Amino acid sequence: MKIALAQLNYHIGNFESNTQKIISNIQLAKSKGADLVVFAELAICGYPPRDFLEFDEFISLCESSAQEIAKHCTDIACIVGLPIRNDVLQGKDLFNAAYFIEDGKVKSITKKALLPTYDVFDEYRYFEPATIFKCIDFKGKKIALTICEDLWNINDNPLYVSNPMDELIKEQPDVMINIAASPFSYTHDDERIKVLSDNAKKYHLPVFYVNQVGAQTEIIFDGGSLVFDTDGAMKAEMKYFEEDLQVFDLTEVENVRNKYPQPERLTDIEQIHDALILGVQDYFRKSGFSKAVLGLSGGIDSAVVCALACSALGAENVMAVLMPSKFSSDHSVQDALDLVTNIGCMHEIIPIKDAAEAFDNMLAPAFKGLPFNLTEENIQARIRGTIVMAMSNKFGYILLNTSNKSECAVGYGTLYGDMCGAIGVIGDVYKTQVFQLAKYINKEREIIPINTIVKPPSAELRPDQKDSDSLPEYDILDKILYQHIELKQGSAALIAKGFDETLVKRILKMVNVAEFKRYQTPPILRVSPKAFGMGRRMPIVGKYLT
Amino acid sequence: MKIALAQLNYHIGNFESNTQKIISNIQLAKSKGADLVVFAELAICGYPPRDFLEFDEFISLCESSAQEIAKHCTDIACIVGLPIRNDVLQGKDLFNAAYFIEDGKVKSITKKALLPTYDVFDEYRYFEPATIFKCIDFKGKKIALTICEDLWNINDNPLYVSNPMDELIKEQPDVMINIAASPFSYTHDDERIKVLSDNAKKYHLPVFYVNQVGAQTEIIFDGGSLVFDTDGAMKAEMKYFEEDLQVFDLTEVENVRNKYPQPERLTDIEQIHDALILGVQDYFRKSGFSKAVLGLSGGIDSAVVCALACSALGAENVMAVLMPSKFSSDHSVQDALDLVTNIGCMHEIIPIKDAAEAFDNMLAPAFKGLPFNLTEENIQARIRGTIVMAMSNKFGYILLNTSNKSECAVGYGTLYGDMCGAIGVIGDVYKTQVFQLAKYINKEREIIPINTIVKPPSAELRPDQKDSDSLPEYDILDKILYQHIELKQGSAALIAKGFDETLVKRILKMVNVAEFKRYQTPPILRVSPKAFGMGRRMPIVGKYLT
Repeated sequence: MKIALAQLNYHIGNFESNTQKIISNIQLAKSKGADLVVFAELAICGYPPRDFLEFDEFISLCESSAQEIAKHCTDIACIVGLPIRNDVLQGKDLFNAAYFIEDGKVKSITKKALLPTYDVFDEYRYFEPATIFKCIDFKGKKIALTICEDLWNINDNPLYVSNPMDELIKEQPDVMINIAASPFSYTHDDERIKVLSDNAKKYHLPVFYVNQVGAQTEIIFDGGSLVFDTDGAMKAEMKYFEEDLQVFDLTEVENVRNKYPQPERLTDIEQIHDALILGVQDYFRKSGFSKAVLGLSGGIDSAVVCALACSALGAENVMAVLMPSKFSSDHSVQDALDLVTNIGCMHEIIPIKDAAEAFDNMLAPAFKGLPFNLTEENIQARIRGTIVMAMSNKFGYILLNTSNKSECAVGYGTLYGDMCGAIGVIGDVYKTQVFQLAKYINKEREIIPINTIVKPPSAELRPDQKDSDSLPEYDILDKILYQHIELKQGSAALIAKGFDETLVKRILKMVNVAEFKRYQTPPILRVSPKAFGMGRRMPIVGKYLT
Repeated sequence: MKIALAQLNYHIGNFESNTQKIISNIQLAKSKGADLVVFAELAICGYPPRDFLEFDEFISLCESSAQEIAKHCTDIACIVGLPIRNDVLQGKDLFNAAYFIEDGKVKSITKKALLPTYDVFDEYRYFEPATIFKCIDFKGKKIALTICEDLWNINDNPLYVSNPMDELIKEQPDVMINIAASPFSYTHDDERIKVLSDNAKKYHLPVFYVNQVGAQTEIIFDGGSLVFDTDGAMKAEMKYFEEDLQVFDLTEVENVRNKYPQPERLTDIEQIHDALILGVQDYFRKSGFSKAVLGLSGGIDSAVVCALACSALGAENVMAVLMPSKFSSDHSVQDALDLVTNIGCMHEIIPIKDAAEAFDNMLAPAFKGLPFNLTEENIQARIRGTIVMAMSNKFGYILLNTSNKSECAVGYGTLYGDMCGAIGVIGDVYKTQVFQLAKYINKEREIIPINTIVKPPSAELRPDQKDSDSLPEYDILDKILYQHIELKQGSAALIAKGFDETLVKRILKMVNVAEFKRYQTPPILRVSPKAFGMGRRMPIVGKYLT
């Protein structure tokens, strides 16, 4: 039996485009001699559809799309994911399901049992878990079809009390197929390979795994669909960050002696780089926009975002706005201009002096001679926010946010100022990783000016300001933030690990007090196992850790 | 047996304050002769603790607080809610639980089975559902204790496949006690009374129900704890929007002839009014702030928010900033000043002309003579946002957002302009309801100037602008929005109900395109069954309805 895995980039709720893409890949798989073509979890509507699922009309559109797709399943069978209604009165109204389609008809329905409800996932918000499991009979083979999480309850601290494969294995299937919408993080590819390999070994069955690819606002799917033999050895690894369709012969996969030359794995920074470019591209492609604007300060964050945006959209579609103030150092404008020259994007220089003076004068009566402080620093950042938003409004450019994860974490940024933007490009990248990204971007030639990389980070909102005036050095700050955010360590645990008590308490308080700012920041492209945004839901008015 | 219901206002993660409050109410209940005092769901940590629950240290603090509370349970028993660890390896790491404490010791633990995971609720994100049910024996009575949602699976379209009371009833209990954290909406009090009454009737048992009171950022708990007799008749209704402790004699409750004189129910607008005041109060009290700032335009939205803020915080703690532009009508400033005079709050007048001219000049080279459009309208709004944030930064005032639900819905507002603020006071109140609120505020004397109420709504960002230039009349707009947002009707369903097809499609598209703006707006005090924010999670980059 020949199985095609179709790793595609869907668009949430774009039924016309998703359906056409699925149909054309059915034709492609057929032309390559496949007996069965497999599409991802919730392929028909895209993942995550979120509360669109609460609209009955949305579910009807999924069903009518599936019927349209079914018409094209002649001389080839297909597995495709979609939400379906639960016809039992008790329980949630929907299932996360997959249709097995043969001879133009839906022959069987597989429902998901283990519903990820953590981090960015909310599946139990919508779906009833399956309780009945049945293999699919096709061309003399029994297929154990599962949906994403249903294969993931195999680690040392299982999140669920049941295991769908333990039920399916009773029917003695010949092959496991898993359809997924498994988002990227720089740790996730290794975890995924291990989990699927462990399943192959545990059940002594080959595994065919197909993932989505492409970004849905902040969530990025990296593809990397996989095939394993019955020994749990990887037999194939499909493209990362790109659409792909490949056809595999089940007999060849079952032959465990047929070794697959494993490609070299990408480093974390390479993966983050590629993921961010796909994230920016898909935000624009799927929103129907093509041009971006950003503020270019001469610092490393905006330089890296500018370089990523130029790779994603083409330098001719990126407008960099330089907005010097009286506190900007001479080198800042030069560093920014050097980047513009190196990269070839559009630019404008709009000094903020006039607006800063206007605000000073307008506010003077109310401020009654109170001294310059954070207020005036924030006014500068908000003038810049107003300028780049004006460029966005006037020309239809989409504003890219350039805040990094370290400053998002501790609230080192101005709400409605440098925290503006439609999408946060590096908001899940710690400052120390931003430096690594800059070096990676410069791997072939100097794109980001060396001076931008080597000078001490500064917001330049008052004379001779340095980030290190308000924050610990980034290498220690980022270590503590990683322990607290990614590893969920509280202060006692961090102090026990040897971090300085005063510093830990100060940083954790900064992180938690800044929650009100993060609530209002743009969606952030997720590249780590724990990004700010939907995946981290914190009380705003709370006392713990503040 | 005498049962005290302690309806208290907790503060999320403030273990010291919550524990002290619980202990002092144990003493109070004891002094009133109670045998048992009952506190709400997750009383020890406050509700909703969200991802604080993922910190092991947070769970330890819940446990040590419970041990401290237990020491005070002598000569009185207590039921109190808290999260506890799941000591079984399989499944989620926590239970949503309640301790029954007697003689200074935890005598039994009740776990929640039905975990609300919809709207603002995320309980399955953290908790494993209970599967074992057991009554509590106390003073010769059997108590069927359940936690909130565990009594709610009683309607026509049950959300869960099981029903904890159907298990507990097998032990033939004498009384039902339900501890809750059941948030306010203007429809919720009636639903709650019906559900609890239905339970009393179905199981033929008296019901004692205790709720939380107070606001946790956007979620408002209204209290209104209840007692029902075995016929499902209400025997007592505790205070709304206030703390309360009352002691009930079980024998008297069981006496169905002893009728309770039901108080008149508050109208929806009265409830919304009281809820918003509590919402503002608790945002400030629990954040440690006392003074608010807002932009006062002369229009009805900011006037209503100003009046609510003065009721919540005291007029002496509210700073209204008037920021006229060249497009402001003469009456706007006068209407705003009239309100200030009527209400006695602080005010400043800061015309925005100088900053508007500065931006015009600064942007002129880049804009190359392009005509005035939405860009310049937004610049005015963003100058105002910068001014009120400067007042906030300089003086420590907290900025109140004044956007109403109708404009949040259709995106009729400027991001980083009038959409700024720490908390959205009327973001869950449709424009037509804002008018009702204004009239209610004026019930005794003219606080909100009549001219503010009767003049046509306008953003005054260009000459002679009216909201009705861009939007349908609010009474038709709000009807369609209510059907779409609260009742989740798609376009086909709305058209079938007789709404104009072109209008429906235009409005639904506006609602869904504006998702990127709503993602970045402040938390909004929730008063309806479906508020923007955590309770409505929509894709930003999607195609459905746009």
